[in-house]
Amino acid sequence: MNNRAFQDCYPEELSHCFGCGKNNAEGHQLKSYWDGDETIAHFLPESYHIAIPGFVYGGLIASLIDCHGTASASAAACRAASMEMGVEPNLRFVTGSLKVVYLAPTPLGVELELRGVITEIKERKVIVDISLSAEGRTCAKGQVVAVLMPENMVTKSVSSQNIDANKRSCPA
Amino acid sequence: MNNRAFQDCYPEELSHCFGCGKNNAEGHQLKSYWDGDETIAHFLPESYHIAIPGFVYGGLIASLIDCHGTASASAAACRAASMEMGVEPNLRFVTGSLKVVYLAPTPLGVELELRGVITEIKERKVIVDISLSAEGRTCAKGQVVAVLMPENMVTKSVSSQNIDANKRSCPA
Repeated sequence: MNNRAFQDCYPEELSHCFGCGKNNAEGHQLKSYWDGDETIAHFLPESYHIAIPGFVYGGLIASLIDCHGTASASAAACRAASMEMGVEPNLRFVTGSLKVVYLAPTPLGVELELRGVITEIKERKVIVDISLSAEGRTCAKGQVVAVLMPENMVTKSVSSQNIDANKRSCPA
Repeated sequence: MNNRAFQDCYPEELSHCFGCGKNNAEGHQLKSYWDGDETIAHFLPESYHIAIPGFVYGGLIASLIDCHGTASASAAACRAASMEMGVEPNLRFVTGSLKVVYLAPTPLGVELELRGVITEIKERKVIVDISLSAEGRTCAKGQVVAVLMPENMVTKSVSSQNIDANKRSCPA
């Protein structure tokens, strides 16, 4: 079974996201996967991802939820359409809206786990509910409303790049 | 008139936030100020803060809204109580919840402006509505529900540090 990360299936020219793009050397490079009908990702914050000493910065938590959500949306849309990720037409999603509720301070120095549940799939919109936990305790919950990337956004971006498209197929 | 940034009034031991702490050398060091009855901040993303090439990473936008919101909450609470920022008891706020709506792709390479409007102030909770714009165009809107930092969170953090408290007074 192919268990390639969703983000590794993004087209090369759309793999520069600071949060999860494999082509962004400065970024977090979050990797999201299927786990049954849910999606899962793990991330170990850096020592400087501080809110106050001992606890993880809230903006990082929001960012991880955001990236896991949009990647989960892409994967879910492909699965629903019986399409492989990474094959044209790529179903790349961006964030329409993001909500995060911070339930408990998140301890710094431990691996975080994100779990996504797809609650709605439409042709151009997917909603993902996400929980973020540390050491088995839920620290934050979020919801990402992901929308299919607008065509003009892709056009404007690709036209500014000089990267060869390198498509790989990744079974959904 | 003293126009010191809100974040420069935080106690030393609570100034390590990756988004806006002056003591976090790796962080964004966002600075927020009063502008009449609104609050304002400016930020120039790095070239690697990419969503897709040409556009700003959504997680950074969420983070800036988050930090500007909690700082604005602290400032608003001090102003409402006729207290100076940076003087005991410090009214330090953390994020209870965060919502962001992404209205338009945010162009990379230009300075972003955040504006906050205080919509509710209670003793332990402040709500701030925030807009983020680039070149005069609103790209995102957000809402931060900020809550007074739980005492046990402060205690756990301070007890893990070895930093001298260095308090300064900053007129509200």
